[in-house]
Amino acid sequence: MPQLQRLVITSEQLQGEQIALTQEQQHYLGRVLRQQTGSRFIAMNGKGQWWLAKLDSPKSAHILESLNITTELTIPVTLMVAPAKGNAFDQVVRCTTELGISRLVPLLSERTLLKPSPHKCLRWRRIAIEAAEQSCRQVIPEVLDPMSLTAALRWSQQRGQTTAQYICVTDSAVSGLLSKLAPTQGIILMTGPEGGWTTTEQKQAILAGYRPVSLGRRILKATTAPITALSVIAAHLEQHSVSEQQEGVT
Amino acid sequence: MPQLQRLVITSEQLQGEQIALTQEQQHYLGRVLRQQTGSRFIAMNGKGQWWLAKLDSPKSAHILESLNITTELTIPVTLMVAPAKGNAFDQVVRCTTELGISRLVPLLSERTLLKPSPHKCLRWRRIAIEAAEQSCRQVIPEVLDPMSLTAALRWSQQRGQTTAQYICVTDSAVSGLLSKLAPTQGIILMTGPEGGWTTTEQKQAILAGYRPVSLGRRILKATTAPITALSVIAAHLEQHSVSEQQEGVT
Repeated sequence: MPQLQRLVITSEQLQGEQIALTQEQQHYLGRVLRQQTGSRFIAMNGKGQWWLAKLDSPKSAHILESLNITTELTIPVTLMVAPAKGNAFDQVVRCTTELGISRLVPLLSERTLLKPSPHKCLRWRRIAIEAAEQSCRQVIPEVLDPMSLTAALRWSQQRGQTTAQYICVTDSAVSGLLSKLAPTQGIILMTGPEGGWTTTEQKQAILAGYRPVSLGRRILKATTAPITALSVIAAHLEQHSVSEQQEGVT
Repeated sequence: MPQLQRLVITSEQLQGEQIALTQEQQHYLGRVLRQQTGSRFIAMNGKGQWWLAKLDSPKSAHILESLNITTELTIPVTLMVAPAKGNAFDQVVRCTTELGISRLVPLLSERTLLKPSPHKCLRWRRIAIEAAEQSCRQVIPEVLDPMSLTAALRWSQQRGQTTAQYICVTDSAVSGLLSKLAPTQGIILMTGPEGGWTTTEQKQAILAGYRPVSLGRRILKATTAPITALSVIAAHLEQHSVSEQQEGVT
């Protein structure tokens, strides 16, 4: 089914089995993709459910059947990142959505250069929706409002019993993230801003229960580090194919 | 030492212990960074050697000492990627250089939209140098001229005995890259263009000895896939810290 167009619909758009398309969706299906009445597409509610749908008119569609797919990581992964200047953070939102994050927290650390406006946050949420549609996610990652490091540490301490918490640091004496991953019910991971964490910030996170991990011997850009970290986590959680997992090989 | 400026110098610039700076380097050190006579920087030859150097004048410097660093992956990794449209491939060159590739081969597959000009290749080589300086690489990755898939498979067959060869595919019944990595003397990895490999291309690579691997259950963009693959390979090769490796813990 991945070759069919995927569209996120809200609960307000769904009345029984009928879907009322938004003006933007009408334009996209009708004008951009030139889909006719009778064409099929995938409707997703962004919370795990996919349906096969059929266009009844330029403005509406109806559900044909519920689709059974499994594209989510097996546990929720929260990423806390200090946004980079300009639009460089867009790439982080897009790639880490493709890689399966559940939640993204923009962090205001001491060396964070960007103080994101509400407009920026709306933009990141829109990018997360688009990337979720394109990458066949079942769930749209939640992009929270920016938080200070102190608030983020307090937030994650409330989840401390059930999640493994990691802070990526540049100290090469520290073990790699991959070697520290262990069975858990969830992961929270922090990567630093351009210029890195201050020593105080690093200590504060470690005191709050975060384990320091390395992403390798080289210096990664602040925009590369979260993509690398998520790639490693997703690869660890999905080492074996779906069919092997169903057979219990993992 | 990573906080010092790093500059790549050619063998022609080095006469005994004296370094003749290029006009671009003179401008960068003197005008952009406002470095004075007596300032220190790191000179790297891009082939593994780093030196601590001291500015003698705006135009020249001399070597103080040879530096002992280890930031390269333990085995050479060649990445073969079909370049994406526009400037999106710049990001791939930059990030995979940070992640430790030895060699990048732009691939001309059936669905490759970009036919790179010699000017593009020069641009990618310049990006590789910059990213190598910034990420503390010892070696500058080689960016080869674009190759057809057939030529690339022939090229890699000549290295078949000593390298493990992987092709990233979107089939979810295939195992993850991480689970297929095994001790080897080198890795060659291919990721597909926007729109994916054709069935014929995929078969051709598998027949030539490439093992198909998955990068997860979601659909990654053509520009995300190589960064994800390199993140997984680097994490696998550098699971343990440098000090643990020296103690033989791996």
